[in-house]
Amino acid sequence: MALELVEALAEQIVEGSTRALARGLTWVESGGARAEALCARLYPSTGRAQIVGITGAPGSGKSTLVRALALVARARGHTVGILAVDPSSPFSGGAILGDRIRMSDLTLDPGVFIRSMATRGALGGLSRAAADAVDLMDAAGLGLILVETVGVGQDEVDVMRLAHTIVVVSVPGLGDDVQALKAGILEIADVHVVNKADREGADRTVAELRAMLTLLPAAEDAWVPPVLPASAARDEGIEAIADALDSHRTYQKTSGELERRRRKIVTARVLRIAQDLVAETVLARALGPEEAGRASLLDRVARRELSPHACARALLAQAAGRATG
Amino acid sequence: MALELVEALAEQIVEGSTRALARGLTWVESGGARAEALCARLYPSTGRAQIVGITGAPGSGKSTLVRALALVARARGHTVGILAVDPSSPFSGGAILGDRIRMSDLTLDPGVFIRSMATRGALGGLSRAAADAVDLMDAAGLGLILVETVGVGQDEVDVMRLAHTIVVVSVPGLGDDVQALKAGILEIADVHVVNKADREGADRTVAELRAMLTLLPAAEDAWVPPVLPASAARDEGIEAIADALDSHRTYQKTSGELERRRRKIVTARVLRIAQDLVAETVLARALGPEEAGRASLLDRVARRELSPHACARALLAQAAGRATG
Repeated sequence: MALELVEALAEQIVEGSTRALARGLTWVESGGARAEALCARLYPSTGRAQIVGITGAPGSGKSTLVRALALVARARGHTVGILAVDPSSPFSGGAILGDRIRMSDLTLDPGVFIRSMATRGALGGLSRAAADAVDLMDAAGLGLILVETVGVGQDEVDVMRLAHTIVVVSVPGLGDDVQALKAGILEIADVHVVNKADREGADRTVAELRAMLTLLPAAEDAWVPPVLPASAARDEGIEAIADALDSHRTYQKTSGELERRRRKIVTARVLRIAQDLVAETVLARALGPEEAGRASLLDRVARRELSPHACARALLAQAAGRATG
Repeated sequence: MALELVEALAEQIVEGSTRALARGLTWVESGGARAEALCARLYPSTGRAQIVGITGAPGSGKSTLVRALALVARARGHTVGILAVDPSSPFSGGAILGDRIRMSDLTLDPGVFIRSMATRGALGGLSRAAADAVDLMDAAGLGLILVETVGVGQDEVDVMRLAHTIVVVSVPGLGDDVQALKAGILEIADVHVVNKADREGADRTVAELRAMLTLLPAAEDAWVPPVLPASAARDEGIEAIADALDSHRTYQKTSGELERRRRKIVTARVLRIAQDLVAETVLARALGPEEAGRASLLDRVARRELSPHACARALLAQAAGRATG
């Protein structure tokens, strides 16, 4: 890896070159040493953007909402980065492409940068890459970064934990099944949007979400997540959502909550990177050749000569040696 | 921790004491040093049971199916352990209790051991605890262990990866939304069950699943997952599912696939434990007091003096020191 190359690309990204940003994001998606060097170089230039995560069940109209929000933010003078993250399986690989086409009118605006990022294997690689991608957009000077995820699994929750403000999109008439699946995400929402609010049952969904919120423990003076009806396809209710994002930012700054959230984000992120490093070592051992003269630790576990816990401790020491050596 | 206590409990578990097994499972749920010591002591006694994971969308009738399968297995002379794992949020905490009541006729049979295990925080703790719980049941001599998960998220996939045979339960008429959510799990199924097959659309669901299977890459002579219609509530199709479990076991043994699957299970499990150890260290740093005389590493990341990757490498070294020291 040529360090001059990293340095040159980093400078162009900070100067706002869209081409350099696109190239940097490709590095970040691939991972490895040059991505890490680029991120380390750019990290001091981050911390200015408001990072908004937007999630919800498939079919809730997230992409349309993201597009509408981006237009409002542009009208208010912000530059906007959009990162569409799709951790789903090959079976649903078409969704992102469709979203990109729907967003095509936005792509003509130089104040908007759009990128989609598909899954790159399991083991948290995606949330690591998404966090690095957000850093690059932040360092490039984009003021509002909208991170959209498809689906409602643990990967999505991990990605959402990168955001300062988390928007969860519901729609009227989704069955209890899907609502139950979303429970883990509902709890981390800062703003609730009930999209497709022109549909029957929207009032009930709004009421149910508000009732659910009263069940969550909350400190006095804590932020109360608003529940906002909207129809992104008809461009209704979007200004109110943009206002709520602004209010949440102001609340976070004045209450000190922004620093606490940032600390949480950093902790989750460092943890994820450390766990990825461990995964690399363990999987290298699992897939690699036997060491000369002794059986692999994992083979000894498979033969029940060594317990999984003891093996994990031994491999952790090896991972630390590799990571710092 | 008194090692005599661990030894005494381990002996009683291996001798088949249900009370000792229940107590050991409580240890395992709490985690910590005594659970680890117990698991290490019992680990050489494991490896005899067939571990079957059963998952599917909420409302697919998994619990009824598990109950029906357990009855068939008993009639065929097997002892049965049932582990119902619920990694969902407090909002849906009622499900497991309902399942336990529905299973109450099974609880009178001394050849069946039933345990439910709720979530214990994030970060993989649940799949670690579930794996240890399965080991205890295996060491206790239960021949068939049915691990049931609620929902379809990453936690469920992690838990399913403990199993020798993975059964995915679908039902006719679930929307495309839910089917898409399940995609990650559909791919790891060894046996597909279309439950509630008396409902309209069952034939179509069976046909769709079979069509989907033809899209998956498969080696020649590989196991082809059967798609079996059933109605667990009417006790229809259950014998065929039990036959498929037997066939899969036979296939695994004769093809060498069982050893490969065991190796995969061990790898995933060791990785998860190592990652949990890292999480403990990182979170202790995040929540603990500042070290005397120097700022916490995480604070330095929050202040952008240190990159997340550099911090992760430093904390990994500390985790290794704690784990092996």
